[in-house]
Amino acid sequence: MADFSAELRPADPQGPDILNQERANSNIDASQLARHLLHRNDFLERQRRVLSVIEHLPVFSKRNQLNIARPERYQLGLARSKELRRLTLKHGWDLEDFKMAEYLVGEVGPYALHTVMFSTSITEQCNEEQMRYWRPKVDSWEVIGAYSQTELGHGSNVRGIETEARWNSDTRDFTIHSPTLTAAKWWNGSLGRTANHAIIIAQLMLPKNGKLVSFGPHQFVAQIRDMKTNKPLEGLVIGDIGTKLGYAAMDNGYMLFKNFRVPRSALLARYTGVDENGNYIKPKNQALVYGSMTFVRANIIMSARLTLARACTVAVRYLSIRRQFSDRDVNGPELSVLSYPTVQIRILPLVAATYALHYTGEAMYNLYWATRADIEGKGDTSRLAELHAASSGLKAACTLLVADGSETCRRAMGGHGFGGGSGLIPLVTDHLDKPTVEGDSWMISQQTAAYLIKRMTETQKGSLVEPIDHQFKAFLQDKSAKRFDIYGNDEDIVKAFKNRVSWLALKAYENRVEKQQSWTSMMVELHNLAIAHSESLLVENFYNAVVVGVPTPSVDPSTVEVLKNLFRLFALHLIDAKSREFLFSQALDLQQLQSITTAIQRLLGEIRPHAVRLMDAWAIPDYALDSALGREDGDVYNALWQKAHLENPLNMEVFNPDFKTPEIIMGEGAEQAQARIEKLALGTYGHEQRKGEARAKL
Amino acid sequence: MADFSAELRPADPQGPDILNQERANSNIDASQLARHLLHRNDFLERQRRVLSVIEHLPVFSKRNQLNIARPERYQLGLARSKELRRLTLKHGWDLEDFKMAEYLVGEVGPYALHTVMFSTSITEQCNEEQMRYWRPKVDSWEVIGAYSQTELGHGSNVRGIETEARWNSDTRDFTIHSPTLTAAKWWNGSLGRTANHAIIIAQLMLPKNGKLVSFGPHQFVAQIRDMKTNKPLEGLVIGDIGTKLGYAAMDNGYMLFKNFRVPRSALLARYTGVDENGNYIKPKNQALVYGSMTFVRANIIMSARLTLARACTVAVRYLSIRRQFSDRDVNGPELSVLSYPTVQIRILPLVAATYALHYTGEAMYNLYWATRADIEGKGDTSRLAELHAASSGLKAACTLLVADGSETCRRAMGGHGFGGGSGLIPLVTDHLDKPTVEGDSWMISQQTAAYLIKRMTETQKGSLVEPIDHQFKAFLQDKSAKRFDIYGNDEDIVKAFKNRVSWLALKAYENRVEKQQSWTSMMVELHNLAIAHSESLLVENFYNAVVVGVPTPSVDPSTVEVLKNLFRLFALHLIDAKSREFLFSQALDLQQLQSITTAIQRLLGEIRPHAVRLMDAWAIPDYALDSALGREDGDVYNALWQKAHLENPLNMEVFNPDFKTPEIIMGEGAEQAQARIEKLALGTYGHEQRKGEARAKL
Repeated sequence: MADFSAELRPADPQGPDILNQERANSNIDASQLARHLLHRNDFLERQRRVLSVIEHLPVFSKRNQLNIARPERYQLGLARSKELRRLTLKHGWDLEDFKMAEYLVGEVGPYALHTVMFSTSITEQCNEEQMRYWRPKVDSWEVIGAYSQTELGHGSNVRGIETEARWNSDTRDFTIHSPTLTAAKWWNGSLGRTANHAIIIAQLMLPKNGKLVSFGPHQFVAQIRDMKTNKPLEGLVIGDIGTKLGYAAMDNGYMLFKNFRVPRSALLARYTGVDENGNYIKPKNQALVYGSMTFVRANIIMSARLTLARACTVAVRYLSIRRQFSDRDVNGPELSVLSYPTVQIRILPLVAATYALHYTGEAMYNLYWATRADIEGKGDTSRLAELHAASSGLKAACTLLVADGSETCRRAMGGHGFGGGSGLIPLVTDHLDKPTVEGDSWMISQQTAAYLIKRMTETQKGSLVEPIDHQFKAFLQDKSAKRFDIYGNDEDIVKAFKNRVSWLALKAYENRVEKQQSWTSMMVELHNLAIAHSESLLVENFYNAVVVGVPTPSVDPSTVEVLKNLFRLFALHLIDAKSREFLFSQALDLQQLQSITTAIQRLLGEIRPHAVRLMDAWAIPDYALDSALGREDGDVYNALWQKAHLENPLNMEVFNPDFKTPEIIMGEGAEQAQARIEKLALGTYGHEQRKGEARAKL
Repeated sequence: MADFSAELRPADPQGPDILNQERANSNIDASQLARHLLHRNDFLERQRRVLSVIEHLPVFSKRNQLNIARPERYQLGLARSKELRRLTLKHGWDLEDFKMAEYLVGEVGPYALHTVMFSTSITEQCNEEQMRYWRPKVDSWEVIGAYSQTELGHGSNVRGIETEARWNSDTRDFTIHSPTLTAAKWWNGSLGRTANHAIIIAQLMLPKNGKLVSFGPHQFVAQIRDMKTNKPLEGLVIGDIGTKLGYAAMDNGYMLFKNFRVPRSALLARYTGVDENGNYIKPKNQALVYGSMTFVRANIIMSARLTLARACTVAVRYLSIRRQFSDRDVNGPELSVLSYPTVQIRILPLVAATYALHYTGEAMYNLYWATRADIEGKGDTSRLAELHAASSGLKAACTLLVADGSETCRRAMGGHGFGGGSGLIPLVTDHLDKPTVEGDSWMISQQTAAYLIKRMTETQKGSLVEPIDHQFKAFLQDKSAKRFDIYGNDEDIVKAFKNRVSWLALKAYENRVEKQQSWTSMMVELHNLAIAHSESLLVENFYNAVVVGVPTPSVDPSTVEVLKNLFRLFALHLIDAKSREFLFSQALDLQQLQSITTAIQRLLGEIRPHAVRLMDAWAIPDYALDSALGREDGDVYNALWQKAHLENPLNMEVFNPDFKTPEIIMGEGAEQAQARIEKLALGTYGHEQRKGEARAKL
């Protein structure tokens, strides 16, 4: 019989009709809102332009991606990265175009560290002579660089790394050496199979009173692989660390050094250095470098918002289309799943969070550029501490929010959310590292807490210097119960969040400064303080952008009203989750909290009709979503069917289900099957030609 | 240069020494505690016996598992399933042995539905004649069965499935037919490539007043593939649905029917049926069947506890060994990561949760067997409703706890937690479906809430029938503020949880019964009510097992003291997370809550020295853990190095990093690379021999 499935169509109502109706139910101008959200760097036009170049090139097809073994995912990733580099030259793309292409492909490829950390270190840490030598090689991609910092035994605690760069007084150069196995560089992106150069972070060991003593971790640049064979140089063992939860295309690597010589000029010497006699040259002010770390963190927030927006776009569209059960009290047709409060309460606060992240990302950019202008114009570094504290805490809070939020979206979609057609598998798995990398979120939050305790201490002394000092002073002057009107007055919402931060900061100050409690014993409350401060910033920035200020670029007044509701939902949902801290600080009392669920459900109801258009405004193309469930046209079930029935390689074979024979593929015979399966299990499959070789090609 | 990595060892202290010291610091007898926890079904001896058979067979090696593409994972899974079946016959394994082997391999294989849902349906739904025909075929594995219920358009709402079984009056048989694409069976395990038979759930369509009318979903059994070729029979389109977040080895399938004829005897007819004239035979009481659904859910809790124990075992061992930073106030050596309160607060409550799940699993088993004895002995079905409500809510609460808890463990391990050496990738991804399958946790919780509202209604009327009615009555008689002494009195902890449930149940009763609020609008509060009830059961069962009763099989008194602390930690941590509900119900007041963090941190400190032994007691073998981080001997860094450096297939090739050439593997040449990569991307890689074939082999 012929394949009759093509004759069938999904039961009514059809997905596209449902999404059309959803869009008709809202008066939000999604294109206008998209221009509002994505005005920076000409995002929308850039997206259109870059997408049109890559979308239909075979190498960028995502069709088979989840069916590829990890070693081949690296190969595909390398091919894609090469193609992106060639397209960059062909089309004269700038760095923003290149990053747009990476965003759309949705994969961190093997060249990623070259364009970011390697290149940045060259720019920021080279002296003029080094810059003249390295910059052209980096820009032309004559060298491919990795950034080699983290080790097997040390990640968060950079000062604890074990790799040593020992000064040789006779030859006036360095020997880089790994004294232990835990000194092995580990996790370093682009290092495993790709890079031929690396920035290497090592303890700078210089003579002092006749002994080599560490002057702390410093950056060195060195060639690590032969430029012709791409095999590691003598004295190095390098390889890929293996599979991970995500990032299949990236070759995170390891590296061990055995008496590996590098010249004195390998030490990046813009701010520090070693003279010809092995004397240390003390570092100059690195304020600007700290500033750029902050810039990286503002970028983390901006890309976090797009990650969460991708998850929410898929969830909102699919859950609008999906129907299941009719209302228990009304014997009508099945309801859209997004109409159930149990689904709304999980998804719509995340929709609101995408907007909250956006306005805080904007505010952090503005703060960064203002601070930078202060520094460059007037040498004024006074706002750096505030900027650093805010960016650390926000990095922690926002990455946790997005990691958990994406999984919440996936899970709310039930069975289909678990399937490859959801498009959420790489989204969830590739981004679960975000709370860990660039500063573990449970650790860097302490930097924010330390700043807040310091400001509270200064305020107690009467010294008012930074913006938050005034907030603390006002709190100290009047610690009475406030009962902020969080349901009727938007400004009171902001005040309630600030009140909570001030109260937590005061408690932390009392415990640390007055009662001299140990820092370690206070860590849980310090983390909570930092998260509270970050949530306060998220709420305040949202409020300033859509309630106090006129949103720019401008949007229709009716859209502004929806944005205000998103602000309220975001804030009340947070208060609901952290209610105890609001009660303790007396920003609210128990009686007020009794009605918070009602208030939240009312907001959910008001936002629900706009949900699809609120996500349309993020303008995430179908190519980037790569999701049968989240397609812009809503044709969910036909897309799921197509993916399973016509694109699944497992369906290309027929198998033998009889347990009495080891035959697996029908007709292959028992012997061949046994040999093949054993190789699969033991990991030599596909490597027969290298039989007898005991070690990897290092 | 030779590979010098073998000369190196990790920096001191060595992992094995650390774990030895950890074990020496605790007086818990881990073997004794293991016999206490795993006494059922001779678990420990069975585990030892089955492990010794499978551990060293190549096909069960997990070494290469994360490097295998999904289509090959199915093949490996099928080979393993076949071998398990053969071993079952060879060693005379019973079903518990077979399940033990599946647990140790840690993979749901392609035969899984045959042994569970297919076989169970045959046992429970066949009449005597059908049983005589099918039972031997199922037991001998002459047929391999799937269970075909869920459809593309319907999962949770079974009554909404679209597949029809139409009665043919002239031929006195049925035509099974898919009227739409959304009627396609979907997600059905073992169906995609393996099974040759299936239980098919379809709307039973019988003539009534001259028209075919649905009598609701019924079960049919039918052959679906040719017994020789294993290709689908005429009238069927069958295939595998493709990749998923987990379950790579399982062939979840789809199936469409076009006028597919089955005889009248295909309808499973123990409780229902159709006579020769197409008249419906009304169903008999299915109480026992509902009882066995409860049994399935008690099993879910018991296996959930082992899943979480696996995650906690890895986390506790690795975080004890891992050192990072020294104490900020003391310039000493680096601290064990598990000594930081920010890590303890995430991990140790989960350690406690493994024990909480255990005692509730035990209680549910006991309740199940007691209820079953009541039914079989006296025909007394009075406890079924309570059992069903408890098991629904507990399924929801426990699967959410384990899914989130495993990810918490993974994330607390930082970078190495994200890597394949953690062993947590399959653990997290394979189990993230648990809150969804067997009743979505946000949906079945409503069944528990409905039960509680009904009991509150009956109690209000003065009718006291079920155990919880007495709890409700006591609450109604005295609604005054309680201020339970949760820090000083263990019984008060249980009372606080019950008080919270009673208050939430009363609110729900008032809203639903008195104020006639719509069910849908109440769903969020209904979910919260069900979770509160389930948490109350978890706390009460834990309390009864280790505080009130004498734990059996017995353990040392000093161990019982640790178990009591685990009970307190589990309960206080829940109160902390859900504090608002405890405040509203006046079980506690704000002032009491001020000291909860201190109380929790004190418990964390008391439990910390026993953490390693508390997890040792779960007796999870290294083979099952498959984790470099969680090894019993603690040799973490050597194991990570071995996995990366000697077992990673990506390191078998050298690659060409130069973007100017499309060459990928060094020396293969540009042309070959381009062709190969394009096939990888588009999904025809490895299928050259079938070039030109447009469709899958259905």
